Amino acid sequence: MYKQMVPFNNKPNEYYLKFTLKDATGEVAGRVWQGVFSLNDILRNDYPVRVRGSVVEFKGALQINVEEAQPVSPDEVDARDFIPEGPYSKEQLEKRLDGIIETLPKSPGLSFLRRVFNNESIRKDFLLWPAATSIHHNWLGGLAQHSIEVAEQCQFLAKSYKLSLSLVTVGALLHDIGKLKEYSFTGAAFTLTDEGRLNGHMQLGLEMLLPYLEELPPIERAQIKHIILSHHGKKEWGSPVVPQTPEAYAVFLADYTSSKLTRVATVLEGVTSGWTDYDRFLESSLFTGEIQDSQSGSLFDDLD
Amino acid sequence: MYKQMVPFNNKPNEYYLKFTLKDATGEVAGRVWQGVFSLNDILRNDYPVRVRGSVVEFKGALQINVEEAQPVSPDEVDARDFIPEGPYSKEQLEKRLDGIIETLPKSPGLSFLRRVFNNESIRKDFLLWPAATSIHHNWLGGLAQHSIEVAEQCQFLAKSYKLSLSLVTVGALLHDIGKLKEYSFTGAAFTLTDEGRLNGHMQLGLEMLLPYLEELPPIERAQIKHIILSHHGKKEWGSPVVPQTPEAYAVFLADYTSSKLTRVATVLEGVTSGWTDYDRFLESSLFTGEIQDSQSGSLFDDLD
Amino acid sequence: MYKQMVPFNNKPNEYYLKFTLKDATGEVAGRVWQGVFSLNDILRNDYPVRVRGSVVEFKGALQINVEEAQPVSPDEVDARDFIPEGPYSKEQLEKRLDGIIETLPKSPGLSFLRRVFNNESIRKDFLLWPAATSIHHNWLGGLAQHSIEVAEQCQFLAKSYKLSLSLVTVGALLHDIGKLKEYSFTGAAFTLTDEGRLNGHMQLGLEMLLPYLEELPPIERAQIKHIILSHHGKKEWGSPVVPQTPEAYAVFLADYTSSKLTRVATVLEGVTSGWTDYDRFLESSLFTGEIQDSQSGSLFDDLD
Amino acid sequence: MYKQMVPFNNKPNEYYLKFTLKDATGEVAGRVWQGVFSLNDILRNDYPVRVRGSVVEFKGALQINVEEAQPVSPDEVDARDFIPEGPYSKEQLEKRLDGIIETLPKSPGLSFLRRVFNNESIRKDFLLWPAATSIHHNWLGGLAQHSIEVAEQCQFLAKSYKLSLSLVTVGALLHDIGKLKEYSFTGAAFTLTDEGRLNGHMQLGLEMLLPYLEELPPIERAQIKHIILSHHGKKEWGSPVVPQTPEAYAVFLADYTSSKLTRVATVLEGVTSGWTDYDRFLESSLFTGEIQDSQSGSLFDDLD
Amino acid sequence: MYKQMVPFNNKPNEYYLKFTLKDATGEVAGRVWQGVFSLNDILRNDYPVRVRGSVVEFKGALQINVEEAQPVSPDEVDARDFIPEGPYSKEQLEKRLDGIIETLPKSPGLSFLRRVFNNESIRKDFLLWPAATSIHHNWLGGLAQHSIEVAEQCQFLAKSYKLSLSLVTVGALLHDIGKLKEYSFTGAAFTLTDEGRLNGHMQLGLEMLLPYLEELPPIERAQIKHIILSHHGKKEWGSPVVPQTPEAYAVFLADYTSSKLTRVATVLEGVTSGWTDYDRFLESSLFTGEIQDSQSGSLFDDLD
Amino acid sequence: MYKQMVPFNNKPNEYYLKFTLKDATGEVAGRVWQGVFSLNDILRNDYPVRVRGSVVEFKGALQINVEEAQPVSPDEVDARDFIPEGPYSKEQLEKRLDGIIETLPKSPGLSFLRRVFNNESIRKDFLLWPAATSIHHNWLGGLAQHSIEVAEQCQFLAKSYKLSLSLVTVGALLHDIGKLKEYSFTGAAFTLTDEGRLNGHMQLGLEMLLPYLEELPPIERAQIKHIILSHHGKKEWGSPVVPQTPEAYAVFLADYTSSKLTRVATVLEGVTSGWTDYDRFLESSLFTGEIQDSQSGSLFDDLD
Repeated sequence: MYKQMVPFNNKPNEYYLKFTLKDATGEVAGRVWQGVFSLNDILRNDYPVRVRGSVVEFKGALQINVEEAQPVSPDEVDARDFIPEGPYSKEQLEKRLDGIIETLPKSPGLSFLRRVFNNESIRKDFLLWPAATSIHHNWLGGLAQHSIEVAEQCQFLAKSYKLSLSLVTVGALLHDIGKLKEYSFTGAAFTLTDEGRLNGHMQLGLEMLLPYLEELPPIERAQIKHIILSHHGKKEWGSPVVPQTPEAYAVFLADYTSSKLTRVATVLEGVTSGWTDYDRFLESSLFTGEIQDSQSGSLFDDLD
Repeated sequence: MYKQMVPFNNKPNEYYLKFTLKDATGEVAGRVWQGVFSLNDILRNDYPVRVRGSVVEFKGALQINVEEAQPVSPDEVDARDFIPEGPYSKEQLEKRLDGIIETLPKSPGLSFLRRVFNNESIRKDFLLWPAATSIHHNWLGGLAQHSIEVAEQCQFLAKSYKLSLSLVTVGALLHDIGKLKEYSFTGAAFTLTDEGRLNGHMQLGLEMLLPYLEELPPIERAQIKHIILSHHGKKEWGSPVVPQTPEAYAVFLADYTSSKLTRVATVLEGVTSGWTDYDRFLESSLFTGEIQDSQSGSLFDDLD
Repeated sequence: MYKQMVPFNNKPNEYYLKFTLKDATGEVAGRVWQGVFSLNDILRNDYPVRVRGSVVEFKGALQINVEEAQPVSPDEVDARDFIPEGPYSKEQLEKRLDGIIETLPKSPGLSFLRRVFNNESIRKDFLLWPAATSIHHNWLGGLAQHSIEVAEQCQFLAKSYKLSLSLVTVGALLHDIGKLKEYSFTGAAFTLTDEGRLNGHMQLGLEMLLPYLEELPPIERAQIKHIILSHHGKKEWGSPVVPQTPEAYAVFLADYTSSKLTRVATVLEGVTSGWTDYDRFLESSLFTGEIQDSQSGSLFDDLD
Repeated sequence: MYKQMVPFNNKPNEYYLKFTLKDATGEVAGRVWQGVFSLNDILRNDYPVRVRGSVVEFKGALQINVEEAQPVSPDEVDARDFIPEGPYSKEQLEKRLDGIIETLPKSPGLSFLRRVFNNESIRKDFLLWPAATSIHHNWLGGLAQHSIEVAEQCQFLAKSYKLSLSLVTVGALLHDIGKLKEYSFTGAAFTLTDEGRLNGHMQLGLEMLLPYLEELPPIERAQIKHIILSHHGKKEWGSPVVPQTPEAYAVFLADYTSSKLTRVATVLEGVTSGWTDYDRFLESSLFTGEIQDSQSGSLFDDLD
Repeated sequence: MYKQMVPFNNKPNEYYLKFTLKDATGEVAGRVWQGVFSLNDILRNDYPVRVRGSVVEFKGALQINVEEAQPVSPDEVDARDFIPEGPYSKEQLEKRLDGIIETLPKSPGLSFLRRVFNNESIRKDFLLWPAATSIHHNWLGGLAQHSIEVAEQCQFLAKSYKLSLSLVTVGALLHDIGKLKEYSFTGAAFTLTDEGRLNGHMQLGLEMLLPYLEELPPIERAQIKHIILSHHGKKEWGSPVVPQTPEAYAVFLADYTSSKLTRVATVLEGVTSGWTDYDRFLESSLFTGEIQDSQSGSLFDDLD
Repeated sequence: MYKQMVPFNNKPNEYYLKFTLKDATGEVAGRVWQGVFSLNDILRNDYPVRVRGSVVEFKGALQINVEEAQPVSPDEVDARDFIPEGPYSKEQLEKRLDGIIETLPKSPGLSFLRRVFNNESIRKDFLLWPAATSIHHNWLGGLAQHSIEVAEQCQFLAKSYKLSLSLVTVGALLHDIGKLKEYSFTGAAFTLTDEGRLNGHMQLGLEMLLPYLEELPPIERAQIKHIILSHHGKKEWGSPVVPQTPEAYAVFLADYTSSKLTRVATVLEGVTSGWTDYDRFLESSLFTGEIQDSQSGSLFDDLD
């Protein structure tokens, strides 16, 4: 159970714990009155716990007075119990992923992708991980959803612009693969790892792929690595090299488009009229448009 | 005929004219030895002329000694005689344009688009004009091609993100409509107009659309204008307002993607291996990839 | 009456309303204990209301327990009851405005300005509106005061630099005219309109002027529009085109000067010695200088 | 005489000198065939010389074959023989300068200014120096003209905004005084000094004023120095401190306005229709407007 | 004693004072119940006071009810009673300073430094002052420590790169000398002076040195001033001129290095594992590394 | 032999080759009159060739009419024949490198460095390679010289600031190791590789080190990789992550210092008085200082 903890003093050297226990279904206030120091070590932010105690009513709301608590291993936990799910199920995402791969023409790119995603651990995490801890796609399956959106958009762009279909698909599906090592799953949350903060997801992703890249010729290896390293598009946006191939440009542009439009949708969620609050990532508020009477045939509520 | 003219002095107050006559098929050197001052007024840069004279060989190349010249009205001229054509014919572009419009669901957006493109002058120019005088889509039909690419990409994005299909299509097809007034056709070239330089294509496009916008409710009018005004995405990129609706974001992102990928294709054109020259618009060189033997089944030349 | 409202829970599903009623003379705390939900709809932020209730003393201050409230139409309200007045009366501003216009030499610029300001609605609003909702000139008559300051400064500059007196006066008086549509008057406050946020005051101003511009030749029309569009001076400051005529430069520079010096005066207001707080618009604190004994003839208190 | 020199080789170790001799009336080609090495030392770029030789015609133009040359001391030279004069004579500038000073109310600021400009050397150079070696006011008397323009505009601004008239006048007249040491006069040109490049005109100006500042109280001294140090307005524009008093803001804004509008006038000079070339300082081209028939009473040619 | 004061209202026009008294040993809460207005003038933020009153216990903590207070002159106060001391004693710093100076080869630079630091007032303040009021070296002796670090690093760099040892040492030791006038000592704190905010420490430092510089030749004077003026390295970082000599580059780079590494050490202080909080000056968090078992011979705990 | 080649047309379809042959001792003009097309393939820019032909005098200079040419393998070539040597011999650099390593205390960092530099190929190339193809340290041995300078400066900084000596030394010596793969040696020049342009030297360096890093614990591995990835200091300067440990800061700062001061020395080389030309990397000119008479004991020529 996800929680926060606030020490509070009453008399000198006397404390109780005040916190909130959260899971995917909601949250409840909690207190510890006895054994404060030992329970303080067990009730860690972002880590799951199993608690025992009594439920009381306080100021009209329920509250748990926790008496015992044990830490829970991430392996015992279903992430769906703690983290919001995204709009697509694991099965839907897996089907779209395999659809993208298997409709590729026969090519080294196709077999490279098959080898990567035949690794059961990569496949499983790829379908579970969020794409961010905030900003966009920060829900279960977010990484797969975002990568699939980028791949589908790149394949759409490949029809209008001269791109290698297999190279751009490889780059799109794997551009953020390093996020599997940038975040770790505590059982109750995805948190940044030390490695993630020190080395970044581009570098971590490249290292994950090195064993799979070895079978390719050097120049093709360099091009796949190039897409991953350049996918933020500009040095000031965090890429050590800028895009220098058509496929690297396509992945950068589709990634930029996916992250912006997903953030737009997230900011608008639940706001039904007028203007949203200022959003720091988009650097503006958003306008919801007006709600239209469907009978009058307005411009933006298309009829059929 | 497209031309440049260089005055050249021999003795004090004696000149001849040295220039190049260009059309879509090629160019030839030209000279004027008699009547220099009166012909100087007729042979204007970027304006078509009809000339009479004699053809001679000079340093192994042909040269026209021009004796007479008359200016030619733009109306007498077929732009295709002077300006490179793009990859699609007028008929292909018109078919795609009408396809995009006519597959829209019945809505005020659909009838708005029909009214705009039923204006014969708008329709004709829209299919002829380039999208730029340099950088990207600077060929006949470039404006239509670019606008259609943006519209098709926006409609693709509308499947993944919650966008009004008719609003985003209206915005995508018309975001650059002001270029019809930003450039004028001299008969031999498209050149920036005074109005275009003073007011910009966003403002000029809005004014063109005002009569058509009047039939829409105020808030929907404001949203269409918003897409046009915000389509450069950022103030420092030339938009007086930043995108604040999902549809404005989609048009900005698709416009950004289309302009970058078209520039990438233009820079790579005719370069078959290694690296291109540095490109000022992209701020880098581009890598062509290696030429692959199609038998060996390389990564980037997909087999079928 | 201007107000804010804060819901407060006592027991589940029981609320009272806590707010502040403001007008130009001061503010008083208010509460609603009965009919909370229906009064909640009437007591809207930034909108005027007429209330009936009882006045009590609470913690040493007066408080109104509101029992009834009716919304008030903006037309019934005198803005001066709610919004701080600026340093000049409507009459003073009108006299300066007409003075600037009527001392112009006879020219199409003069008759253009007369036509615009003979529109009673434009004239009335122009003399009432603030120039901003914050930062500078955010008081009644602020728009007229700012526009007049800019025009007077431009006319001063026209003596030293070669400027068209009538063009620069037209541009200076009308550069912010779109603010009449960027803000609307609720009766108790000026608030940003949807149109204002989506299209900006430059675009809205241009559209207001289009009927008046039609009588001018195209190139003069383009130059007036150019001044309005370029008056922020740089793309990153919000102008889609940069100044490209002497008159556009003059209006930009006078607007920049007026907004900075007015902000400086506002920040210093009421601070009599030492340093002001940090100001986000000016990005610094300001120094007041020392208070000088007027007898000693200090440098900065000029004697006469 | 102003000149450039180009060594040119014919045979190994044989040279002649090829250069241009310039003064305010025009220029003529020059050659040295004998005594190349010794004359090379005398004919220095930007330094005046007195030459003797024969004039010949070459390719239809005159040319001087220089046989003897002597360097000329700056003191023997009238700068007006080499450097273009500005629009105002020394007498006109001096009269305006004294007018500004002498109409100040009696105050320590007035006596400070009198003391500075009673220094004959400062007064003489101030009326002679240009304000720049390029960009704006780069003619004889340019420094005085620019400083006077800034002072007059500041006095105009002092009527609308609360400024100390004497402080702002002191700051405006002296903000660029360090240019007297940033440039030195060679006799034929104004060139940057080592001190000017290493320390900048703000620092050099402050040091010139220190003896005069000593008689003022510390806080007033600091405010005058503050105006000089902050008159570029922003750190990235070269000011080590940003403006923090109303008078410092006024001098920065008037300086900015004067430099931009003077550059605008310079760029437009001699261009009678259409567009000027791109200007690197203004970062744009300028539009001249259309030439109007004065009979028709156009907008921008005011009638009287 | 360092303190803060908060007025608090009980009844209309009745106040008590609530504040904190601080010195280098700790802090204690304080109150004034009688004579509020006169004591309010004496108990000034950042100024030392001597108080008399009674000590009571309130909510488990001590509190002083102040009955009398007198202001204390800075001269009566030992700064070490109020301000944290740095890692080196005055004696240690003085020894290192003199060591740097006295090991210089005999040169005008050496005698210049001796003359400056033989001024007893400069020497005393130089060894006492902090280098900043926040960010880095903000403790007693911080200015000397920072200047010595910069000088030692410059002398190290002089071994690898061709630098004048005496010039770079002069510049390094004196680059921040103006801080002696940018901050003043109130007796209880170092606070920014009006002069410091209006003119900056570069300008104030130059003026302090002018009498000492007079004995040097002009070009050497200009080079020392150049180092001081350019030591922030870039215009946007606050230098009116950029470094243009090897010695100016060395001082800029050593100053940049010293300020960053000292800030890094300050941010890490007291954090023993994991990540520090976000630091605004460094624009990131810092990683502490892992605590290693010294027996195992880890990479970063070097053995000996 | 280093060369450039310029095709030149005389008659249609007839060409000769015009080029310059260069080696470390100088250059000579060359021509090919026969077998132009086959020799064109052999005489490649930046690649060494062995030529046979006749030497003639043309316009007072020697010229080689090349009749035969064979390409030469890089292995047959001594780089010193084509590329300028730096200030230190291979032996001197190797001694300093080993000195730095072997004076480290016994630690995993020491054994890591030994393992890397015991690889004969790495050691040999490290001592031969330049640090850049332009800007700074672009001579033989430049990479080793630069890396050693950075390491020595970091070890100096470790005395004043709390740094792990072995970690900072590892990071300093290896921060640019990827340049061994970013440039390749053609036999006559060092040129950017495709891999280098697509992936950058940070990424290529990390991959070279992966086999050596495997023996270290994960967190120490991450810290070494962090230093390499962050050594450009800022995202806009090309680092995908910013420095987040003291050692990463030290390597960034020493690298910044070394590159700036080496560029300063290079720009000043051979300029003995006055000012250098504008340098694009430093964004300024440099001042040489004045040449001083050593007898007079000037400030900047230290006496001993």
